[in-house]
Amino acid sequence: VGGAGVGRVTGPAPRQLATAEIIAVGSEMLTPFKVDTNSLLVTSRLNELGIQVLAKAVVGDDQPSLAALFRQALARADLVVLIGGLGPTADDVTRDVVAAVLGRPLAVDAEILQRIERRFAARGYRMPEINRKQAMVPRGAVPVPNAHGTAPGLWIDDGERAVLMLPGPPRELEPMLAAFARDVLAPRAGEARLHRRVLCIAGRPESHVDELAQPIYARWRDAAPPVATTILASPGQIELHLTVRSTDPAAAEARLARSIEELSEVLGPDIFSTDGRGLEEVVGELLRERGLRIAVAESCTGGLIASRLTDVPGSSAYMQAAVVAYSNQAKVDLLGVPEALIAEYGAVSEPVARAMAEGARARGVAEIGVGVTGIAGPAGGTPQKPVGTVAIAIVGPGAFVRVRTFTFPPGRAMVKAQAAQAALDQVRRAILERAE
Amino acid sequence: VGGAGVGRVTGPAPRQLATAEIIAVGSEMLTPFKVDTNSLLVTSRLNELGIQVLAKAVVGDDQPSLAALFRQALARADLVVLIGGLGPTADDVTRDVVAAVLGRPLAVDAEILQRIERRFAARGYRMPEINRKQAMVPRGAVPVPNAHGTAPGLWIDDGERAVLMLPGPPRELEPMLAAFARDVLAPRAGEARLHRRVLCIAGRPESHVDELAQPIYARWRDAAPPVATTILASPGQIELHLTVRSTDPAAAEARLARSIEELSEVLGPDIFSTDGRGLEEVVGELLRERGLRIAVAESCTGGLIASRLTDVPGSSAYMQAAVVAYSNQAKVDLLGVPEALIAEYGAVSEPVARAMAEGARARGVAEIGVGVTGIAGPAGGTPQKPVGTVAIAIVGPGAFVRVRTFTFPPGRAMVKAQAAQAALDQVRRAILERAE
Repeated sequence: VGGAGVGRVTGPAPRQLATAEIIAVGSEMLTPFKVDTNSLLVTSRLNELGIQVLAKAVVGDDQPSLAALFRQALARADLVVLIGGLGPTADDVTRDVVAAVLGRPLAVDAEILQRIERRFAARGYRMPEINRKQAMVPRGAVPVPNAHGTAPGLWIDDGERAVLMLPGPPRELEPMLAAFARDVLAPRAGEARLHRRVLCIAGRPESHVDELAQPIYARWRDAAPPVATTILASPGQIELHLTVRSTDPAAAEARLARSIEELSEVLGPDIFSTDGRGLEEVVGELLRERGLRIAVAESCTGGLIASRLTDVPGSSAYMQAAVVAYSNQAKVDLLGVPEALIAEYGAVSEPVARAMAEGARARGVAEIGVGVTGIAGPAGGTPQKPVGTVAIAIVGPGAFVRVRTFTFPPGRAMVKAQAAQAALDQVRRAILERAE
Repeated sequence: VGGAGVGRVTGPAPRQLATAEIIAVGSEMLTPFKVDTNSLLVTSRLNELGIQVLAKAVVGDDQPSLAALFRQALARADLVVLIGGLGPTADDVTRDVVAAVLGRPLAVDAEILQRIERRFAARGYRMPEINRKQAMVPRGAVPVPNAHGTAPGLWIDDGERAVLMLPGPPRELEPMLAAFARDVLAPRAGEARLHRRVLCIAGRPESHVDELAQPIYARWRDAAPPVATTILASPGQIELHLTVRSTDPAAAEARLARSIEELSEVLGPDIFSTDGRGLEEVVGELLRERGLRIAVAESCTGGLIASRLTDVPGSSAYMQAAVVAYSNQAKVDLLGVPEALIAEYGAVSEPVARAMAEGARARGVAEIGVGVTGIAGPAGGTPQKPVGTVAIAIVGPGAFVRVRTFTFPPGRAMVKAQAAQAALDQVRRAILERAE
């Protein structure tokens, strides 16, 4: 990909790209089993350049349907991004539809053809005849290099209408789009950029966060520059997305910094990150900074806490060990929980959670021990301890103990997810409080 | 919701519902952070009734955009399903747009209003004035009862065009749609039904599965009734979706059964389920049937295998314990792996995987032990053992041992996911082979 002017050589000053629509092409995304996620990546790149996505569509590998949707999107948006349908088979219809709708006949591009042939030759194959199709290009379209697959992307820009065709496989799409956005789209998108912060909050329900935050961010709509907000909820986590669209990066960043300060005043330590990082990353960083190691004893979470902690690259520096002790016997044998304690308080109780945490800490040779015991369901609940009851204990140096019992809404997967999230959050709070 | 005729009292025989489009309404789904998943549920219900989804769209809370998309969808499909935008705020535009586009003015439905007021009263509140909007109904629309929220769904069916408006929250949408599909949509959808089987395959790459299966299912397209196939790949798992649309359930099911037989002849034991169940469920059932208990020792998978096994309700019957031993010290202390073994072969080696499996089996008091040790990356790879190298051992009664070393494509999350999948698959194969 060359400089800013690629794909457009003559004509008046091109229309600035302010709005876009995205069409994902592929019949598999019209089944109940597969959702389009590529458009999230494309949206992210476009938003960074201040380009607003007006609508998204998913359509099957069907020429008339795609042609209708494409024509309508062209009428509404400055830029239409088509994802998928650039493969070599008869099902791959994107090229043909774009050529037909824009009245730009297809022809073989000798350079692309050569590159595809070389790609096959490098693997010791002759190019199958059907792959010739991937070298077909609508008149005036500029190929967008694809380092990870046979089909290049295609870019058409007549100054009035802009069309970008991207391949469906994410490992091809992602690097191609990153380079293209930087080199070609950015100069066409005008001066405004989108600045964003994602505040992640744990320990409060969505309605509570909204009640506290809404009076604050309601005022920001009329600020200069205005701050737009979106609230999103997932199990045990609320996210506040703050965005400022501005041509002045310093003003935008300052506005966002002030906004975060205002929210911090009411939400305090419930905010665990202001850059979208997950709890496992935040906890990992706290552990690493303070030279602490962690060991985990899990019952109802079944390994999910350990799995999340080890999702973080470099977690071997602080993650010592985890024991999933589902049965009472395993709690006794593997963690040294006294049988008498289980008999007296029950397996789901604060004393047992604490003993599990202490067992993990001692056996894992760690500074911090975590113990989680609860009832994930669907069976196992009682009137006193219904499904969703989870005891979480954190133990640390100097006889530090933090124990709490939660009652989560039922649903096995939900209880697991919320208990893991709460346990990581309790570790975070314990480390922060100890440091004060 | 009453019987089949609800919402349509006069006129000629209604057009059969064969095709649908789905529009999800909500600006948050146009951000890079949130994907529409409700449409998968709607698609599933529609497909069951033989109704084909032609296209899907996502649009923001914007009247002109929604009106344009809605008008176009009406022109193409027999049924348009709108999801979301039925709340009480100014952002909720679905009702107004449908009323305007169809020329059916909105009016307050006294019965709905009363129901909303009672819902608030039951919680000790007066209904806020803004919620009055949720009782507004386009002329001729029939409310669809909502047991889990304030706003009912709405159904408009003039025999020629059918429009269904559903609330966005899944816990409201799901039960509402289940009842509505059964009572109202089914009689309008004609006789044909969609019959589906999902074959899940492990241990082969997608291209390999396709190469073996394609010559077989290519023939099915012309069979009576024809079988449509879709192939989907996720880390360590290939799915073949077979669907038959037919008015004769017995013929459809017989066709699917024969199709599965034909595929089984070439794919054999690589097929681990024919009903879409995941490996953790299949392994769980094998363990339960045979009265076997399992214990797991994990290094690079970090608890993911244990977490997947315990995702299954009732897994406490066979899941004894898991130990996540990330450090060499933990492998020695918690699993009894001899230090000399690690020194001689390295932590990522078949002998260490086997010793981990044996340690887990003995300490967890289980019949089957699993040991997984590998390099998830990004750091830790060597020329001899690059990132993605994973040794997996299964041990069982009678000195049974099965050990294999895999090399997965790099990427920390991918290595974890593929190693967990491969380990579960090795357990499955070990149990099946032992039983023969």
